[in-house]
Amino acid sequence: MQTIQLNKRPVGTPQLSDFKLVSEEKPQINEGEVLLKAVYLSVDPYLRGRMSEAKSYIEPFELNKAMSSGMVAEVIESKREGFTKGEFFTGLLEWKEYQTHNGEGLMKIDPKMAPLSAYLGVLGMTGLTAYLGLTEIGKPKEGETVVVSGAAGAVGSVVGQIAKLLGCRVVGIAGTDEKVALLKSEYGFDEAINYKTTTDMSLAIAEACPNGVDVYFDNVGGEVSDGVMVNVNRFARVIVCGAISLYNATSMPMGPRIQPILIKNSVLMQGFIVFNYQDKYAEAIPRLAQWLMEGKLISTETVVEGFENTPQAFIDLFEGINKGKMIVKI
Amino acid sequence: MQTIQLNKRPVGTPQLSDFKLVSEEKPQINEGEVLLKAVYLSVDPYLRGRMSEAKSYIEPFELNKAMSSGMVAEVIESKREGFTKGEFFTGLLEWKEYQTHNGEGLMKIDPKMAPLSAYLGVLGMTGLTAYLGLTEIGKPKEGETVVVSGAAGAVGSVVGQIAKLLGCRVVGIAGTDEKVALLKSEYGFDEAINYKTTTDMSLAIAEACPNGVDVYFDNVGGEVSDGVMVNVNRFARVIVCGAISLYNATSMPMGPRIQPILIKNSVLMQGFIVFNYQDKYAEAIPRLAQWLMEGKLISTETVVEGFENTPQAFIDLFEGINKGKMIVKI
Repeated sequence: MQTIQLNKRPVGTPQLSDFKLVSEEKPQINEGEVLLKAVYLSVDPYLRGRMSEAKSYIEPFELNKAMSSGMVAEVIESKREGFTKGEFFTGLLEWKEYQTHNGEGLMKIDPKMAPLSAYLGVLGMTGLTAYLGLTEIGKPKEGETVVVSGAAGAVGSVVGQIAKLLGCRVVGIAGTDEKVALLKSEYGFDEAINYKTTTDMSLAIAEACPNGVDVYFDNVGGEVSDGVMVNVNRFARVIVCGAISLYNATSMPMGPRIQPILIKNSVLMQGFIVFNYQDKYAEAIPRLAQWLMEGKLISTETVVEGFENTPQAFIDLFEGINKGKMIVKI
Repeated sequence: MQTIQLNKRPVGTPQLSDFKLVSEEKPQINEGEVLLKAVYLSVDPYLRGRMSEAKSYIEPFELNKAMSSGMVAEVIESKREGFTKGEFFTGLLEWKEYQTHNGEGLMKIDPKMAPLSAYLGVLGMTGLTAYLGLTEIGKPKEGETVVVSGAAGAVGSVVGQIAKLLGCRVVGIAGTDEKVALLKSEYGFDEAINYKTTTDMSLAIAEACPNGVDVYFDNVGGEVSDGVMVNVNRFARVIVCGAISLYNATSMPMGPRIQPILIKNSVLMQGFIVFNYQDKYAEAIPRLAQWLMEGKLISTETVVEGFENTPQAFIDLFEGINKGKMIVKI
């Protein structure tokens, strides 16, 4: 069986050589353990942070050890109560085709309620990030304007749809004309902007948001966000969920200082990490599942086939290759 | 009688020539009005914003019209119920030695409870800004570390004292050795840093805050704040109250992008304007008054004599000439 390990800590954009595929013996389980077979694997921009040595909200990955992320796995063998062969579970698992587990932190999932991959997307960390970031920090009111960056990405596409369901005007920012078209035709965004072909983001946002910006769900940081921030309304809320444009920076990224805007408009800006809101999962998941089953929430996935293609799928996130959630099928 | 008008909109640091002293006839009151004589006048950094044309949370001052700020005035003549000759009121008033007023928005003050000037300081906008910014956004818990920039200024010196009263470790940042000494000897700060003689602010903060920074009350913005922000703890709260280091900038001030820090540490950063918390004044003022009367809160004032010296007193704020609240005695 294969495992994917961290070979080197990346400098700037991750390279294939930062990973290595290593063969290992298929493990045996002890009493109280289960043997899991990986089925789907989630690659997410936040993993870039764990590849660096710097301390953050999760421990860095260790060199020459398997990496890990959200995964869906099937129980192949069980010596633990509550786990039966053939059942599916989701949780933070190692990048291994097979692994033993004591079952802690895993959540049983129902393949009849939703496709298995949805538990890594709309019904997983992605959907929870979108829903809880938007509702707990953004607190959008009906009729308000919500701007989403990285809008065609995993989290962004869900944020926009939820904001529409909550009665807001929704403007998305993405990086290709195809994505921009998709935001409007598929996800129901009111307006969408291609930042790569827009020379004046601040003007483009002003035009797309005639009533200003009340909530900004930021997945990208950088110059795109500078253009949004000059258009925020009084008492605007900014969910700082991601900064993918800055993750691979090799020197300190500089930009306009934000404090004068925050003061002038009494803006709230808050860093958001879904793991801090675990007490809200139980309330969020049924709501997301209901929207999904009612067809009100479209779950888009870019599925890459083959465990060995995981590193490339991860690298492609930073090129914006994916539409919606990037998933590896193992 | 004299009035001080806005002569020109400043470019960069305000100059004396941006103001003009104009003689006017002493006004007469109509039925329902009072005639007020200015006694004390408050000069505050936020007035710089009103001297510019740009829209903000308060209207810009108009050219060739009197400027205004928080003032204490005596009733000289009254044709309005509830206002008696010899009483003192505070409120947002025009920079005129005498003015008529319909009484709306004025608060009667008691010269026996506290010196009149305190109603522009600890018991006025300054004290309310310090108390409400710290408690409503900062929410400091006993034992946490609170850092204050502009610590020897009007708001900063009160913030530090209140944070001590609430049981926090308090570190102040100021711009002279004399102020640094004062922070520790007079206001009871645990540590104080002279940013002008410190080459590595981030290191200085790390040393002064061995447990990291839980609350940052920011009055200055700029490089001082950059040094604080790299030391914030998980779930830190940043009250963005002022950015005096940026107010006179003639081009867009640039600095390290803040988003990665906010994400990594789930930091809340919020622009604070005291006027948004008017419903909390009634609860805050008695608490401040009690601390003041018990001697637990020291009110420091730099009092400049003479109405005509108001523009210079205002300009001196940006040089950090003042200790505590800068007030003009008329």
